[in-house]
Parts: sequence; C-alpha cells; structure tokens
Amino acid sequence: MSQSAKNENPIRLWGGRFTGEIDPLMNQYNESLSVDRVFYAQDIKGSIAYARANVKTGILTQKEFEKLEEGLKVVLKEWEEGKFQPAPGDEDIHTANERRLGEVIGRDVAGKLHTGRSRNDQVATDMRMWLRDELIAIEGYLVDLLKVIAHRAKQDIDYIMPSYTHLQRAQPVRWSQWLLSHATAFQSDLERLRFTKKNINKLPLGCGAVAGNAFGIDRVQLATELGFDGLIMNSMSAVGDRDFVVEVLQCASTIGSHLSRWSEDLIIYSSSEFGYVKLADAYTTGSSLMPQKKNSDSLELLRGKSGRIFGSMAGLMMSIKGIPSTYNKDLQESLQPMLDTIKTLKDGLQIAARSLATATVYPEKMRAALSPDMLATDLAEYLVRKGVPFRETHHLAGRMVALAEDENKGMDKLTVAQFQGVDKRFGDDVLSVFDYERSVELKDATGGTSRRAVLEQLDALTKTLGE
Amino acid sequence: MSQSAKNENPIRLWGGRFTGEIDPLMNQYNESLSVDRVFYAQDIKGSIAYARANVKTGILTQKEFEKLEEGLKVVLKEWEEGKFQPAPGDEDIHTANERRLGEVIGRDVAGKLHTGRSRNDQVATDMRMWLRDELIAIEGYLVDLLKVIAHRAKQDIDYIMPSYTHLQRAQPVRWSQWLLSHATAFQSDLERLRFTKKNINKLPLGCGAVAGNAFGIDRVQLATELGFDGLIMNSMSAVGDRDFVVEVLQCASTIGSHLSRWSEDLIIYSSSEFGYVKLADAYTTGSSLMPQKKNSDSLELLRGKSGRIFGSMAGLMMSIKGIPSTYNKDLQESLQPMLDTIKTLKDGLQIAARSLATATVYPEKMRAALSPDMLATDLAEYLVRKGVPFRETHHLAGRMVALAEDENKGMDKLTVAQFQGVDKRFGDDVLSVFDYERSVELKDATGGTSRRAVLEQLDALTKTLGE
Amino acid sequence: MSQSAKNENPIRLWGGRFTGEIDPLMNQYNESLSVDRVFYAQDIKGSIAYARANVKTGILTQKEFEKLEEGLKVVLKEWEEGKFQPAPGDEDIHTANERRLGEVIGRDVAGKLHTGRSRNDQVATDMRMWLRDELIAIEGYLVDLLKVIAHRAKQDIDYIMPSYTHLQRAQPVRWSQWLLSHATAFQSDLERLRFTKKNINKLPLGCGAVAGNAFGIDRVQLATELGFDGLIMNSMSAVGDRDFVVEVLQCASTIGSHLSRWSEDLIIYSSSEFGYVKLADAYTTGSSLMPQKKNSDSLELLRGKSGRIFGSMAGLMMSIKGIPSTYNKDLQESLQPMLDTIKTLKDGLQIAARSLATATVYPEKMRAALSPDMLATDLAEYLVRKGVPFRETHHLAGRMVALAEDENKGMDKLTVAQFQGVDKRFGDDVLSVFDYERSVELKDATGGTSRRAVLEQLDALTKTLGE
Amino acid sequence: MSQSAKNENPIRLWGGRFTGEIDPLMNQYNESLSVDRVFYAQDIKGSIAYARANVKTGILTQKEFEKLEEGLKVVLKEWEEGKFQPAPGDEDIHTANERRLGEVIGRDVAGKLHTGRSRNDQVATDMRMWLRDELIAIEGYLVDLLKVIAHRAKQDIDYIMPSYTHLQRAQPVRWSQWLLSHATAFQSDLERLRFTKKNINKLPLGCGAVAGNAFGIDRVQLATELGFDGLIMNSMSAVGDRDFVVEVLQCASTIGSHLSRWSEDLIIYSSSEFGYVKLADAYTTGSSLMPQKKNSDSLELLRGKSGRIFGSMAGLMMSIKGIPSTYNKDLQESLQPMLDTIKTLKDGLQIAARSLATATVYPEKMRAALSPDMLATDLAEYLVRKGVPFRETHHLAGRMVALAEDENKGMDKLTVAQFQGVDKRFGDDVLSVFDYERSVELKDATGGTSRRAVLEQLDALTKTLGE
Repeated sequence: MSQSAKNENPIRLWGGRFTGEIDPLMNQYNESLSVDRVFYAQDIKGSIAYARANVKTGILTQKEFEKLEEGLKVVLKEWEEGKFQPAPGDEDIHTANERRLGEVIGRDVAGKLHTGRSRNDQVATDMRMWLRDELIAIEGYLVDLLKVIAHRAKQDIDYIMPSYTHLQRAQPVRWSQWLLSHATAFQSDLERLRFTKKNINKLPLGCGAVAGNAFGIDRVQLATELGFDGLIMNSMSAVGDRDFVVEVLQCASTIGSHLSRWSEDLIIYSSSEFGYVKLADAYTTGSSLMPQKKNSDSLELLRGKSGRIFGSMAGLMMSIKGIPSTYNKDLQESLQPMLDTIKTLKDGLQIAARSLATATVYPEKMRAALSPDMLATDLAEYLVRKGVPFRETHHLAGRMVALAEDENKGMDKLTVAQFQGVDKRFGDDVLSVFDYERSVELKDATGGTSRRAVLEQLDALTKTLGE
Repeated sequence: MSQSAKNENPIRLWGGRFTGEIDPLMNQYNESLSVDRVFYAQDIKGSIAYARANVKTGILTQKEFEKLEEGLKVVLKEWEEGKFQPAPGDEDIHTANERRLGEVIGRDVAGKLHTGRSRNDQVATDMRMWLRDELIAIEGYLVDLLKVIAHRAKQDIDYIMPSYTHLQRAQPVRWSQWLLSHATAFQSDLERLRFTKKNINKLPLGCGAVAGNAFGIDRVQLATELGFDGLIMNSMSAVGDRDFVVEVLQCASTIGSHLSRWSEDLIIYSSSEFGYVKLADAYTTGSSLMPQKKNSDSLELLRGKSGRIFGSMAGLMMSIKGIPSTYNKDLQESLQPMLDTIKTLKDGLQIAARSLATATVYPEKMRAALSPDMLATDLAEYLVRKGVPFRETHHLAGRMVALAEDENKGMDKLTVAQFQGVDKRFGDDVLSVFDYERSVELKDATGGTSRRAVLEQLDALTKTLGE
Repeated sequence: MSQSAKNENPIRLWGGRFTGEIDPLMNQYNESLSVDRVFYAQDIKGSIAYARANVKTGILTQKEFEKLEEGLKVVLKEWEEGKFQPAPGDEDIHTANERRLGEVIGRDVAGKLHTGRSRNDQVATDMRMWLRDELIAIEGYLVDLLKVIAHRAKQDIDYIMPSYTHLQRAQPVRWSQWLLSHATAFQSDLERLRFTKKNINKLPLGCGAVAGNAFGIDRVQLATELGFDGLIMNSMSAVGDRDFVVEVLQCASTIGSHLSRWSEDLIIYSSSEFGYVKLADAYTTGSSLMPQKKNSDSLELLRGKSGRIFGSMAGLMMSIKGIPSTYNKDLQESLQPMLDTIKTLKDGLQIAARSLATATVYPEKMRAALSPDMLATDLAEYLVRKGVPFRETHHLAGRMVALAEDENKGMDKLTVAQFQGVDKRFGDDVLSVFDYERSVELKDATGGTSRRAVLEQLDALTKTLGE
Repeated sequence: MSQSAKNENPIRLWGGRFTGEIDPLMNQYNESLSVDRVFYAQDIKGSIAYARANVKTGILTQKEFEKLEEGLKVVLKEWEEGKFQPAPGDEDIHTANERRLGEVIGRDVAGKLHTGRSRNDQVATDMRMWLRDELIAIEGYLVDLLKVIAHRAKQDIDYIMPSYTHLQRAQPVRWSQWLLSHATAFQSDLERLRFTKKNINKLPLGCGAVAGNAFGIDRVQLATELGFDGLIMNSMSAVGDRDFVVEVLQCASTIGSHLSRWSEDLIIYSSSEFGYVKLADAYTTGSSLMPQKKNSDSLELLRGKSGRIFGSMAGLMMSIKGIPSTYNKDLQESLQPMLDTIKTLKDGLQIAARSLATATVYPEKMRAALSPDMLATDLAEYLVRKGVPFRETHHLAGRMVALAEDENKGMDKLTVAQFQGVDKRFGDDVLSVFDYERSVELKDATGGTSRRAVLEQLDALTKTLGE
C-alpha cells in the first residue's frame, strides 16, 4: 500500500497558490529560456547542421532538409529582429525553436528534426559554440588592453618611479617596467585563453540523451560544419560534462585577479599621498558632499567584480562537484555563472583599457618620491665592482645609510671624505652612484629596467599580439 | 610637466564608441539602479524618517517636512503602480528618488532633504531594511518547510526503513527519524536566522559620508521610526560595512547545504533501485525521448542551486576581503549576490516544502529493503542484556552472520539450536531479536527511534515553531 | 558469475608496492590519529562520563566503572606527559585510547566501555568539546585585541587624521574614530562568536552509530557532566552533522576578513607616502639587500592568512555539500580545516593585538596630511546654519574650492572679502570654518567624531568586554 | 612629536610572554622553514647554477665557484641523509642553506653567493622547480589511472548495464562506456596538466628583489642548466607572481572534481540496492558495531578530499586577489596549499587507480537491472527506420509502454498482435527490439556504445597515453 500526502493538510500551507499538477513557482524555478535564449543563433545553426547530416543517414530527404533549413532561418530572423514570441511551455530555447519551427513549416517535417537527438547533446553544443565565440571577443579585448599597455610603456619609457615591495619603497624602476609587469600577467592569460578556447571546442552533438546515436550520424561532418576542432569521444561524457564552463571560469577568475591587483596598484597610486596617476573624468565620480573628491570608481569596480567572477567559478564547481555522472538538472546552474562572467569580463577588460589609455601620469611626482636611500643597494654593488665581497659591501652600505640618517640628510649629500672615512675602498667617483637613471640602466639583464631590457620586453610582447 | 595620453593613439582602439568625458560603457558599468530599484520603498521610508528628525535639528520647518513627506509618498505611489520613469542620470535609487521629488514638490524644499546625509549612509540603511524584511519572509518559508516535515513525520510514523551510513544499510529506523534528522538541521538554521535578523538590524543612518552628522540628528529617533534594534556606533564602520550581507549569505549557504543533502537523499531514494519515494508530477519532468523517465528536477535544482548560493557568498567575501576600510565602490558588488541569494532561497524553501508535501512514500519498499543482518547489533545487544561483555557479544554476532551467509539464508531463518551451537547463552527467545519494530522501539534514549523518542523530538520541534 | 581484476594486469602498475589485503598507502590515506590525537583529553573525559552513565543503565557495576575511570586516567596521564605510544592499527584516537585502556586494566572490563556507543557519536562529541574549549580561548584573544584598541583610542584621542573613502581624502576624523571603526567589526565578531559557542555546544553522545542507544542511557546526565548546553535531539543528525565546524569556520572567516581590512589600512598608513604608523621592530623584517627597508610582515601575514581561513571554510562546505545524510567518511575532512583555522586564528589575534599595542603613531604626519579642501563640506554646512538650503550651499562651497585652486592656495588663505564676493551670506566669521578640531567636534551625533561621541563609543565597547 | 605605546599598559596584556624586540610567537608566525624545507634540493641546485653563471659576470672566479659548488653539495648531502641541523634564525630554506654553507666553506666565499640575488627571485625559482617535478609525478599517476580504466574497459567490454540520467534508468550501455566516460574527463586533465607544466616552467632567477640584476647575468644559461622552458620577462612580475601555483591548484581542483564524480557513481553502485561493484577489502572498512557493513572508505575520502583541494585553491586565490603587485609577505601563504594539494592529489590518484583495479564487478546484477521500458526509445527508432516520423513514433512507443504497464508486464511480453493493434506499421519482427545487446550495438556513431565505437574510444585513449 502506498501512501501520499497529496490531498492532505500540508497543502493548505499554500492554499490557492498551488493546485494539482501545475505549480507556477516550479515552472519558473525550472525554466531556462530567460537565460538560454542568448543561444538562439547557435541552436538554430546546430539544428541546420544536424538536419543536413541526417540526409546522409536517410532520416531526411534532401527536400525535407531544405524545408527545415528554410524554416529555421525564418525563426532565426525573428530572433534577430526581436520579433520572436515565446509561448507558454517554451521552457528552454530548444523547445521554443522547435515549437516555432512546427508553426512555420508544419509539424510533419519539423517532427523529424529531433530524431536521435536529445536536448542533452543539443544544449551542450549550443553552450560550447556560444562560449567559443565569446572567447574570441574576449581575446580581442585582452589584446586591446595589452596594446594600450604596450603603447604607454613605449611612450612613457623615460619616467622613473619607486618600485615597491611590501608597499615600501624599494629600488627605482621605469614606470614602463611597472606597466609591463602587469602585461606579463595578461599575456599569460592570453596564452591560457587560447589554449582553453581550443580545448573546449569539441563537439558533443550526435551523442543523444546519453547512449549515442543509433543512425550512424557522421559527427565529423557535424564538427566541420559547426567549426569544432574535434569530437567528444564518449556519449555519457558529452552530455554530463560542464568542465568546459569551469575551465573558462577558472581562466576568467585569474584574469579577474590580475585586473584586481592592477587596480589595487593604480588606486594607491591615485591617492593624494602618492599622486602618480589620475584617471580621466569619465572613469571617476565625484561626491555630492565633498567637491574636492575624485574617486577611481572604474578601478574599484574592477577590483570588486573580480570577486564576483571568482564567486561564479566557486559556485559552479560546488554545484558540479558531488553529482553522479551524465546529465543531472544541477547542470542547468552552469548557465547563469557563465553568462554573468562573460559579460563581466568583457566589460571589465574594456573599462581597464580605456581607464589606462586616458589616465594622466605625473612623472614629476614619481621622481619626487625617489630618495637616495633607495640606492643603498647600488652603493653596495658599487663596491662589489671594486672587488669587495657582497656581504661586506652590504654592511658598509648599511653604515652609510645610518650615517646619513644621523646627519639628517640624503646619502647623496654626504662628502666623498665621509664615505672614505667609513671605508677606503669608496672611490672619488662614489657620488656617481646617486643617479636614478644610472641605477635603472644598470639592471640590464633580461627582464630588468634598462631601456634596452624594457624594449626587449616590449618586443616580445608585441610579437605575442600578432603585430 | 604632467603627461596625458588622453588625446593620443590608444583612443583609436575603440574609435567612435568612446568620446571625451562620457563613456556609455562606463555609465552602464557603474550604474546600480537596475539592481537597487528594489529598495524604492525602504529608500523613501528612510527619507521620511530622516526629514522628520531634521525638524528637531532645525534644518527643516514642520511645514517643509510635511511637503517633503507628501512628495515622497507621491513618488512611492508611482513606484508601486509601476509608473515611475527613470531619467538619464538616475544612476541609483537615491538619485532617482530625489530627482523625482524635486520635480514633484520643487527643488527648493527637496534640496534640503540631503542635508548632512550621504548616499553612503543612505544605501546601507536601505539594504539593511530590505534585508531584514526579506529575512522575515524567509523565516516564514523555513517554518512552513518544518511544518511539512513535522506533519509527515507524525503521519508516517509507522514506516520503518533502513538507515544508511556510508550509503550502506546500517540499522532500521523510522522514516520519521530520517525526516526529523533534516528537521534538526533546518531548525538550527531557524535559530541562526533569527539571531542574524536581529544582529543586522542596526541603523547606519545619521553617519554622513564617513565622519558623522554635524547637526546633532537624533539617531535613536530614526532607529525607532524605522524599526531598527539599535545603532551602528561608529560612522566609518556604518558606511564601510557589508558584513551584514556576508552574514546573511553565510546563513543562506548553510541552509543551501542542508537543502542539498536533503535532496541528495531523496534523489537516491527516488531511484528505481531504492524506490522509497516518488515526487508528484508537478515537481518532475519526463523525457522527450524516453517515456519511462520521471526525473526529480526540483530536487536536482535545489541541490545545484546550493552551489550558486555558496558562490555568491564566496564571491562577496572575496570582494570585501582586502579593501581599505570605509566606503569603496567595490562594495556595490554586494547588491547582486544579496538579491540573487534571497530570491534563490525563497524559491528553494517553497519548492522543497511543496515537493515533500506532495511526494508519495512507499513504505512497503522500505520494509522490503530491511534484512536480518541489519539486526546483528541487536543480536549482540541481546547477549549484553544477558550479561555478556560487549566485545564478546560483537564477536558472537559476527559468527552468526557468517553462519547465515554460509547457509545462504537470513539469520532469522537459523534455528535456535544453531544459535546455541555457537554459544549456550543464546536463549530460546533469541529469534525474538529479528523484529524490526522491536529494534526501533529499543532505541528509546532521547534522540532515538522509538515511537516515544520520535514524538519527543516532534514535540520539541513544534515548540520552536511557535505553535 | 562475478568478475574481479584483482589478480590481473593492472596490479603490475604498482608491483611490489601493493599486496593483497593491505595497502600501506590506503592505511595512511585513511588514518586520522595524526590529526585527532589533539582530542585525547576530550575523548577520555567523554569515556569516563559515558561509563558513569552506564552504571545507571546496568551495563556496568560501580566497581567496573571505577576500574575504567582509573585506567582512563592512566592513559590520560600518558598523553599529558608525552609518553603515550601509538601502536600499529591505532587508526584514530578512539581506537588508540581503547586499545591502551585494555592493556592497562585488562580487556574484560575495557571491552564493556563501548557498549551502545559508536565512533560516530564519539568523534562528534570529542570535536564539539574541543572546539568549545578553543572558542573560549579565541574569545579571550578577541577581547585582548579590543582592549588594545580601546586603550589606544583613549590614549590617542587628540590625534586628527584624514578619513578616506575610495582611498581619497574625505573629512577629518580622530585617529580614535578609525581605531573604533575596526573595534565595531571585532565587537560584532565577539557577539557572533558567543552565539556560536553556545549554539554548537550540544551533545551528540548517546546516539550510537546512527539509530540511537538501546539501553536507555541518560543523555541529560552526560550533557551535564561534560558541560554541554543541550542535546542534539536526533540520532541520525548527531552523527552526520559537521555544521558546527562550518559555523565556526564561517565565523572565523569573517574575523579573518576584519583582520585583513584592518591590516590593509595599516599597511597603507605605514608606507613612506602616508607615514602615519610604524610597527615595532619585532613585527617587521628588513631586507638583506636594501638597508632602508622596514616591511610590515605581521600585517601582510594577517592579510594573507585570512585567505587561508576562507579556503578552509570553502573547502569544508564543498566536502559536505552534496553527500547523503548521516555519517560518510568525507566528514573526516572536517578535522584538518578545523585545526588549522583555530591555530591560525589564535595566532593571528595575538599578533594583531601585539602589533597594534607596540606600534608608533605619528600624529604630526596625520596633521600634515589635512588640507583645507577637506573642509568644503564644513563650509557648505556653515551656510546651512545661516539658513541657506543645502543644495545651494554645496554649489557655493564648490565655487570657493575652485577659486582657491585658481589662486593656487588653500581655501583658508582666501580673504573674507573673496568669500563675500562669491556670496554675501558668508559672514565675517567664515574663516573660523577652517579649523580641523572644530570640524571633528561638530560631528557630535552618536557615532560621530567629537570627543564626546568617541568617548560614548568607548564606553559602549568597554561594557561589552565585561569590565 | 611621535607617540608610542610601546612601554605602556597594553603590554601587560601578555606580560612575560613578550619582551622588547623579540616576540617568539611572531618568529613562529613568520618562519617558513617548516614548510619550505621540502625545496632543499631545488634551492641548492639553483644556487649552483647561479654561482656558475656568476663566473661569467666576473663576480666569482672559477676557483671560488668550485668551492661553492663543493660546499653546496655537502649541504645537500646533509639534507639527503637527514643530518641537516637547523639553527635558530634559519627562518627559511634559503637562510638555512647559506648559513650552513658559510660554516662549511667559510663566510668569505659563501658571502659572495648572494650577489645580485634576493630571496624573492630565489624562492620563486625553488617553487617552480619543485612544482614542475611534482607535476611529472602526478602525470605519471594520472596515466596509471587511465591505464587501469583502459584495462578494465577492454576486459569488461561484454557487460551491459543501465545508464542513468538524473539517477533514473535511461538506456542500456556497456559498463566500458561508463568507465570511458570518466576516462574522457581524466584525459582532458592530462592535456591541461601537460599544458600547465610547460606554462609554469619559466625562470624567475636573475631578477633580484624587484628591479632586475645589475651584473648582466645570463638568464638563458640559468634556464638551460635548471631545465626551464623560458624566462619570465619582467623582474617585478617574476618576484610577485604566484599564478603558477594558482594554475596548478585550479588544474588540481578539476581533477579532484572528476575523482569526486567518479567516486559518487561508484559509491552508489556499491550500495546493496544497486550492487554492481564491490571494492577490495583493502579499500573499505567494516564497523565495530555492525558486522554486515562494508564501507567504501577510499571512495568517500576521494570525494571528501576534492573539497579540500578546492579550498586550497579558493583560499590562495583570495590571498592573492587584492594585494599590490610585486612581493608581499601574503605570498608566503602559497606554500601550504601547494604542498597540501600536491600530496592529496598524488595519494588520491593512486588510491583511485588501486581501488578500481582491485574492485569486483557484478555483471549479472547489472543485467538484472535492465528492463524492457529502457528500450522504449529503441522501439520508437524501430518505427523511424520504417519511415514513420520521430514525433509520431515517440507517441506510439509511449502508448506501448502504457499498455505494458496496464497489463503489468514487460513490453517484451506483449504479443505482436498487441503491437499491431496499436499501429499496423509494427512488423512481425517487432519483438527483436527487446534485446539489450542489439540496443548498445545500434549506437555505432563515434562516441556510442557499440563494440566498435568503444574500441575506437579505447584506441584514441591509448594513443594519448603514449603506448
């Protein structure tokens, strides 16, 4: 004897809101059309390819195919022109498109389209096509950002600023070196993105609901028509895998992290206390209370939204983590984080590029922040060049720093005699050390701050950008 | 000499899309009205209270206050009736409301409203009020779910099923014990929610942009009118804190985790192999391919969306983590995860309650899944009652299990002689052990599976629900 | 016919490393003693209480209980004196203790201890007791930190510094206001911690493996002896719940987030460009290369480790999220994040308190960073007090800011005539606005920066600390 | 006037525990030797290469280099033989090794080793080398796991089981198809791992503390000697980047996710209700209470530990997210998650491979779980082959399912007449549809379940493994 509470008390908990077989809340909870409608073009393109391949399997005649293709193009045009009218029951983009196709060309032929196909392999195909196309756009924005960096790094190569470790002034570097340090990160994103784009571009279509296609569909033909780089080789994996989204979100999270660290630097550099940079007005806001304020909103949003991207990635990984293999409805939760992240990233990369391109830089402030104690290492290395072992030179440089502090002046204001009073090996040329330009030029090994080394970096970067 | 790239090459990267001081993409990137419009009522209610308090400070006359209040109610009505028209430049709900107020009652008086106030303390107030109200709704849905569980636990108290540890059959329990194990988790959510609701209900208003209010506004009066339980005692904290959102999202993540584990159980119990439960049709979908399928979509969505909630929490925590204190624009990123989570949670709790209330339970399948080896512990404890030390009884019970396996029959089909052949202390009543009802009844200590112990749990639960 | 690959090819993949029934790697993968040994005292205390309660159930005689208690105390002493010797097969603390007990008092009586108990309810009891005790320690460290803040806030109340929003100078505030803004966050942690400590302090013992205790054990007696505030009312929940760890980790993550934002502020304030604060040498490191460096290591570690705590929380929530109810071995993964987080947090709170207590503050640097444009709001509010509507005063203040900028001087250096040239309503006393002390004193509403308002905050804080 | 609290009240909070310049807790909080000692070999190898390159720069004579090399090899040997004695002050592996080197060969020559180098570029080099080597090991374990899967897929190719979507029985598939669905995921991990291994293998050494090397060190020579695939091209990036750890942890998290879903399937398949699989005893545990229990501990640990890996990744991403560029002490927090993840992953991959290799599979249980309704799709497709449009065939198959249900028998037990009673187009051969072998064989398109299609997958897999 089975037992249902269907008609008993608990029902009264929501009374009129809920009756029998239909729960409007469940329909809304379950539907995905509001999200997956963005795939309309991919869905239709995929259906045309699928129909074409089914001529070869004998499921469709050439004539039937042509009718289907024509009808699908009508539906596509409706979407493109904003005229597509969803009907009740259109719970997802696949249902909506097929329903409409039936209305356009009649249900007889339309009813053959889905033979051997399932929404499981269809949605995976739509998502991968859409994502691949979006990654191409993102790649473009990333290249744009790198070009802006490269442009500024070349143009501003004369500016010298303090580098910071632990946010404490360390050694002088070119402003371009700072710019290119972030380019290094974004360039590595570019490589990962290119790998990922290729890696996810594999065809799930032709795998049915879970067990494969029983009509010998030519999946290589499908892949070729739809621009895929290969096939997913296992039907159960094809319908149950959302790692292609995870992989993109991981990639996006790292880009977000890079945008965040870059923003953090620029926000600090934009403070009154540092004063190295000001964003153009378009990327700042003022305060309705305090007329003196100019806030770096674009940078703070970039920094904040990197958390959002991470959250999407973390959430999706959790949704996927413990579920059984093949398709489970949990996987529908991959749509929202994917869409949100792609938009956030596309916007962010453009905002970053524009913010940097239009920012004003204040090299005289950078220069004013340099101080002779930042050349203590140069002083030690000066003695190394005279043959003194490094550990000893480091100690001697330390004594000079202390002496200057005692005298309450810059090291560069000490006399040669004072240097030689500490150690005879300081030469008469010792004060030549206190030259910031000399300091950055001495770092000439690859990756360093000399003009040559910076141009070498720029050159390598430009090559990656395909210019 | 400062140096700007403003008018140089990089601009060409986006050409016509971007000119001078206005970047439409930045406007869209920056605006929050599309999200924070949900606070329209809280925003207006807060403004009325703020204006009233400013009569006392002397900023407003009683007459001016009345004009402001009247005007604000007009704006409120426009929102409620869906007639509010956002204008360009309405970047957030505060700007939109004040702009419209000026149109309704004139800018002279409207222009006095914002005295000593900033959007920083205003948005924090709106969010806390909105969130507090939503938590009341969520509390209601959580209570509903607990009532459904309690109802079923009471109604289905006779059903006995296998309990599982490690997903392996362990000991017999009442189905109600399983139901109430999840109630324990949801009840603890309820307590945490009630604590959180109170904890976040503290007033930021009257703290200005960051440094406080210079007109001696009576914040206790504001708190009383707006239903807050207390004040945030520090102006810098008031505008820079979003922990109240984090706290709610942490709470929500734990509820999500509970919904997920509950769903996981029910999904497994709904498989053909277990067969203990079937959801009502309204909460399942079939397959367009396979007529035999009945998929537990509502449960899988609940399980999947628990990842989404976690992701929102994780993302926000990351956004907040490393930023300096007080207000930074990064904090705007607290809006989207808050709104998304509240909706996801409200929907989820209702879906869970309805899915359970309308599910069919199959006690005969549960009973069929019970097997005598699940009573091996009872057998050991039978001997404990005869004075045999537990470690010895455990060993003897193990031998009986092995014997039954060798004979390829249930332990309950062995003869008394066979028991006594293994150990003389098995009495003639030994076969009485093999009674699932007896087994669950013996677990009568608080928290156990006896009818009394289950009713004790039900009783305690019902008290928490305020019935 | 069943089919095993046990004796076939794949074995050769690890050859000699793996034989038959024993896989040393699996033993190591599975064991928890290296982690759960920290619970030795709780485990023994719990066993004594359990034995005592089993005198009442009739499982043990009073004499047997005394023998057990005596033996357990011997084992405890061995742990305390570092003399406990784990044996092979001691996979967890429960096994180790019971094994050793048997050696000390003989297996006959020792073998009765585990009657009706399982490692499932035992480990949950140990963990809750240990965690509760640790939370008491953490509460102490949190109070210490708050006391240091309160002490400095009182002592340094005269210092005035710029407040920042968006890391841009906003309005003058007392340094104590900044200190207390963080106290507000830590105080809220304290309240949450106290709630959590109470919330998790519920007894799982007496619930057996999953179905309850069959000997009518008095769980209230157990709770009383072991210092629990209540019972977990459902046996399946008692053994399968690790939310008490999640709850603590969520709490810890928020504390970590607060330590991170506090550190971020102090790191920025410690930069040469700000220069408001210097840590004592004990909490900084220098550089082997650059003698001028003094890095705020303690703060950076606090900021960095807040990620680590979050990661532990996130990881555990993921481990728990999708598993079926009751005990699954996945739950063993709650141990490591719990232990790691407690240690990280205890260390961190102490390091934070000590770093702050010993830091040097530079009020003259703070004062030097104040500029008259930060009083533009005060200027506007000056006119509000003369009856001019706020929106108009804001505009007029803006014009004065612009005029001062044009003249390249501070607003306070403009003449009264220049003010009145812009608007007649500026009085002869207008220059009195340009007084930072006056500005902070005017913010006298609760939560503001006046001396009175700050002392009011201090007073409220001190009350919470129980002094 | 500056103001310190150094000698005042707060100190008393920890009294004797803390005095003056030394805080033992801070030393412990700050040190990393307990973790980074695992890099001892990489550190020494890197130092030898660095010294060799400094012969060319003129910093060292050939003789000095030889002395350094000899000394470093002595230190290496001490580590290898477990004889290295850390001294107080050895806060990290670099300090420890250089300190010991000075003792072995004298400080004069040892003191030259660090010229132009910093611990910042040194630790990054050590970490990358260590990680690269570990990834080679992990790749090996991943290949082992894939080989075990391939072996079983080949050996067990005859077994037919139900596939599941939504954990509901869907269509028949080969057990090998299930095995290979997971191989698809692991294979994609392998590709990503290989990309990552190459991507992170870039040299930071020769970049100094932040600004580069001032002695023209040949970084290409360093890279060649140390086996790097290229240089990090920017000094600031070289010392401040920990994305190489993030990238590996992201990769590891995805592998963890795959291990978790694989485990989830097997845990379900190991339940009594499914019964398809049993792990070998070495990978299970029993219960001290219930002799009938056999718990799949290894699988549950794999599932649980995937959360741990994710947590490490999430925590590190948060630690890195908002910090300024170049080196900050926060980055030290990359060590622990890196080490923990690598160990967890190496263990996990081995445990997975061994668990699968030694598991027993029950094909007769799989076969028994197949039911004729799982062939409803085949029935529909039977009619498609007779020219009936799919949507119609689907409807007709649905009617047959309903008829069988009404008659309370399997569809295969209906008569041909009953089929033809529903639709004349059912041929006399209709009952041939009810053949599970036929069903899996019909799915012969690439990726499907036919023997040919499975062997095609196996073939592709084997190629990737390099056999």
